[in-house]
Amino acid sequence: MTDRIRNAALRDRIMSAEQAAAMIRDGMVVGMSGFTRAGEAMAVPLALAERAKTDPLKITLMTGASLGHDLDKILVEAHVTARRIPFQSDPGLRRAINAGEVMFIDQHLSETVEQLRTRQIPAVDIAVIEAVAITEEGGIIPTTSVGNSASFAILAPKVIVEINLRQPLVLEGLHDVFIPTYRPNRMPIPVVSCESRIGLPYIPIPPEKIAGIVITEKADSASTILPPDAETKAIADHLIDFFKSEVSAGRLDNRLSPLQAGIGTIANAVMHGLIDSPFHDLKMYSEVLQDSTFDLMDAGKMTFASGSSITLSAQKSAEVMARFGDYKSKLVLRPQEISNHPEVVRRLGIIAINTALEFDIYGNVNSTHVMGTQMMNGIGGSGDFARNAYLSIFVTKSIAKGGAISSVVPMVSHVDHTEHDVDILVTEAGLADLRGLAPRERAKVIIANCAHPDWRASLTDYYDRACSFGGHTPHILEESLSWHTRLRKTGRM
Amino acid sequence: MTDRIRNAALRDRIMSAEQAAAMIRDGMVVGMSGFTRAGEAMAVPLALAERAKTDPLKITLMTGASLGHDLDKILVEAHVTARRIPFQSDPGLRRAINAGEVMFIDQHLSETVEQLRTRQIPAVDIAVIEAVAITEEGGIIPTTSVGNSASFAILAPKVIVEINLRQPLVLEGLHDVFIPTYRPNRMPIPVVSCESRIGLPYIPIPPEKIAGIVITEKADSASTILPPDAETKAIADHLIDFFKSEVSAGRLDNRLSPLQAGIGTIANAVMHGLIDSPFHDLKMYSEVLQDSTFDLMDAGKMTFASGSSITLSAQKSAEVMARFGDYKSKLVLRPQEISNHPEVVRRLGIIAINTALEFDIYGNVNSTHVMGTQMMNGIGGSGDFARNAYLSIFVTKSIAKGGAISSVVPMVSHVDHTEHDVDILVTEAGLADLRGLAPRERAKVIIANCAHPDWRASLTDYYDRACSFGGHTPHILEESLSWHTRLRKTGRM
Repeated sequence: MTDRIRNAALRDRIMSAEQAAAMIRDGMVVGMSGFTRAGEAMAVPLALAERAKTDPLKITLMTGASLGHDLDKILVEAHVTARRIPFQSDPGLRRAINAGEVMFIDQHLSETVEQLRTRQIPAVDIAVIEAVAITEEGGIIPTTSVGNSASFAILAPKVIVEINLRQPLVLEGLHDVFIPTYRPNRMPIPVVSCESRIGLPYIPIPPEKIAGIVITEKADSASTILPPDAETKAIADHLIDFFKSEVSAGRLDNRLSPLQAGIGTIANAVMHGLIDSPFHDLKMYSEVLQDSTFDLMDAGKMTFASGSSITLSAQKSAEVMARFGDYKSKLVLRPQEISNHPEVVRRLGIIAINTALEFDIYGNVNSTHVMGTQMMNGIGGSGDFARNAYLSIFVTKSIAKGGAISSVVPMVSHVDHTEHDVDILVTEAGLADLRGLAPRERAKVIIANCAHPDWRASLTDYYDRACSFGGHTPHILEESLSWHTRLRKTGRM
Repeated sequence: MTDRIRNAALRDRIMSAEQAAAMIRDGMVVGMSGFTRAGEAMAVPLALAERAKTDPLKITLMTGASLGHDLDKILVEAHVTARRIPFQSDPGLRRAINAGEVMFIDQHLSETVEQLRTRQIPAVDIAVIEAVAITEEGGIIPTTSVGNSASFAILAPKVIVEINLRQPLVLEGLHDVFIPTYRPNRMPIPVVSCESRIGLPYIPIPPEKIAGIVITEKADSASTILPPDAETKAIADHLIDFFKSEVSAGRLDNRLSPLQAGIGTIANAVMHGLIDSPFHDLKMYSEVLQDSTFDLMDAGKMTFASGSSITLSAQKSAEVMARFGDYKSKLVLRPQEISNHPEVVRRLGIIAINTALEFDIYGNVNSTHVMGTQMMNGIGGSGDFARNAYLSIFVTKSIAKGGAISSVVPMVSHVDHTEHDVDILVTEAGLADLRGLAPRERAKVIIANCAHPDWRASLTDYYDRACSFGGHTPHILEESLSWHTRLRKTGRM
C-alpha cells in the first residue's frame, strides 16, 4: 500500500465498501467519478444499492457522464437514484427517466461544475472518487477518467476514495487538473494547444477531507461500440473527401485541425476511416478517447490526444494498458470542464464530429429524444463542441429500422442543436455543406445529398408545399411532425 | 478636414457617394458598418440603391447587425440585396426574406467574422465603414458602433470610408479594436473585466487600401423602443425580487454581476427598473448600450458599460452627445466578436437578459420565427450570451394580441435556445427559476409562474395528458403545435 496510499496516516482510513457507503445518507447529493464507462467508483455504489434493500434511501447522483458495470441500472433498481445529473446511457435508468420516476437533469457537460461552484444547484455532500493512488499531500490521482471528479472532491466536505489496484501506477502523470479561478477574478484558461499542460497531475485536496478509502480490483467496463459497417464506412469516406476538398481550397492542410469525436459507433468509425487517408500528424481535443484514437496512434497518423476519459473495447484495453508507457507522452486527461470548455474549443478551432438521432431539412439536429419525448442518453458534450467548433459536423445513417424511419425529417421532434450550430451533415448517402446557406438553400442540399433515396421525393414534396406558405423557414405546422405520429401509428414514417 | 483626415495624402481620395458606389459591382460581397441602427455607412448604400434603378446589380450585404435610415428597405426595394448576413430588423427586408426573395443567413453575431477569417463564407470584396476620422497611419476611428467593421476593413482589399461630420471627434478613444490571432497560434482573449482595454482605439489598415472617402453629415436613426408599461414594469419587478433573493442566498452581492440586455422594449424596461433598486456599482458587458445604460449612469447606479454600439432615442442621444466627455471614461465599444465572445461571456459570469417571442412548458425559447416560419429579426447575440452566461434569463409578456396568443405554449414552433441554455423565465405573471430542474419539474413551474391565468388550465391539461404518454419531455406530437395552427385558422390559440 505504500505506493498506493503514500500518506501513512491515511492508511488508517481503509475500510470496507459497506462502511464507506454508510456515510451516504438519505437525501444527500453524491458526486461520483466516472465518464463514459471509465474510471467510475464501483464498490461504494454497489454497497449502497445492497444496503438500500433493507435501509431505503434516495440520493441525487452526479457523475462526469455515463457509468459502466451496470451501476446506473443497479442503483435505479434499488430505488436509490432520485435525481441524476448530467448524463447517462443505461437502459434501466433510461426507462425510469422516461417513466418520470427519476428526475434527470440533462446538461452541457462543461456546465455542471460551473453551476456547483456558483451554488446554483444543490451542493455535493460527499464525493466518491476512483483513484490509482493518493499522494503524500492527499492528492488524488484519478484512473481512466477525470470527468467532474476534481471539482466534486474539491467542493465536497467529505471524500471517499476507491483505490483500484487493477489500474496501473503508470497512469500517474496522465492527468492535468486545472480548476478555473472564481469570478470576478477569473483569468483566461491557458490551454493554447492540445498538448498544453496547465494544472496538477492529481486532484489537490486536504488529506483530512478523505473520510474513507476502499480498495477495489476491477477493470473498467468495455466500450460497447460496434465495428464499422458499409454505411459507417461510406460516412467516413464522404467526410474524408470533404476534408480533401477543404485542403484543396486552402482552408485546411493535411494535418487538419484538432479533432473531437462523440462517443459511439459512427463517430468511432469515422475516426477509423482516417487511418487510410492522406492526413497525418493529427491531434485530438475531445472528451472520450476511444479505440480509434489508439489505432490512429498505432498507424502513425495521430501525434497527440487530449480528452477527459479513455474508453476502450476489451481487446484494445488489454493492448493499450500492456504498453501504456509508450502512449503516455502523447496523452492528457483533463476535467470535462476544460476538455469541453467553450473558451478552449473556440480558441483551438476544433473539427467536431457528433452523432445525430435525426435532423431536419433545415439542419436542426435532435441528438437525444426518440419521437420528441423519450430520452436516449443526453446531450452530453455535443453542444459544447458543436456551438464553438471551427467545423461542426453531425453524422448519422439516413434510415433506421430497415427503412421504416428516415433520419432526415421535415421537422425534428426535439431540437438539441439549432441550424446555427450545424455546418456539415453526413449520412451514407452523402454530405451536405451548409456553410453560408439560408434555410431554403439548406433544405435543397440536405434532401439531395443526405436523405435516403426512398425518402427524397416525400421530403421534396413537403418542402415544396411548405414554400407555398412562405417564410424564412417554410413549414406546414399541421404536417411538420406527421412523420413521427405516422410512425407510431403504422410502424413506418 | 485636417482633424478628420489626418493623413494629407488621403484627402485626395475624397469623392462623391456616387463615385464611391461605382466601385461596388454586381455579385460583390459588401461589408458595411452598422450595428442596431448605430454607426452605419449611409451615403454609399443610398447612392448604390439610386444607381440600381438604371444599372441593376445584386450584392451580398454583410453588416454588424441591423441598419437605420431605412437602408435595408431601400436596398431591398432597389433589388440590390441578394443575400443578407447576419441580422436585420427591417419590415421591408423581412417581407422579402419571408417571401424567399432574399437569402438571409441568420448567425450568432460573434461568429460571422470567424467564418470570414477562415474563408468558410465568401470573402468581403469591399468594406464601407462610417468613421469619425482617419489617423495619420490610415487608422479608421469608428463612430457609434464597432460591430464587424474592423474585420471587414482588415479583410477587404478595398475600403470606402464615410466621414460623418455629425459624429463628434470626442468619440475618439471610445473604441477598443482587438482581433484574435490566427489559429493554430491563437492566444487567450485578454479581457478579464468589463473595463479591460486590450486593443487599439482605431481600426488599423494600410492607408493604400482606402479607395475612397465620402463626407456625410447625418445623425444616427433614433432607437424605436417603447417606454415601459405596466407589464414591463411587472417583469422588471419580478426580476429585481429574484436578484434580491439571490443576494440573500449569498450567490450575488448588491453589485450583481456584469449585465447584458438584448435590444428592445422589454429588456430596456428591465434595465430601467434597476434605477429604483438596492443594487449599485453595476456594470454592463453587452452588445447594445441603450437609453437605460445612460439613465443608470445618470442615477449613479452604473459605473461602467462595455458594448459594441450605442443606440439611443432622439432625446437621450442629444443629452448624451452634448456631454459625451463625462461618459467616455465609463464606456468602451468593442468588435461584436469580442463583446459577444463565448470565451469572455463565460469568463466574466454575465447575467444575460434577452427577449423571447414564445417559450414552451419545458423552457425551450423561440426568439425569431413567428408561427415557426416567418422570420422576425434574427437570433442576434442572444445565443452568444444565453449559452455562456452565469444566469440566462428570457423575458416576454405572457400574452399577445389582446390575449388571443399565449407566449407560453406546449411546444415552441421554432427553437433558438434549448432548455439547457435557459435558467430563468419571466413574464408579467411571474418568474420561473429552472436551475437544476428536470423537464417535468420545469413544466409545472413555468405553467404556474409564467403563463397568463387565462391559459394555465389549457397548458396544464396538455401537460397532464402528455405525461400519460410518458417520456423525459412528455408531448403529444399530434397536438404539440395545434395552438399555432388553431391561431392561424381561428385567430386565437
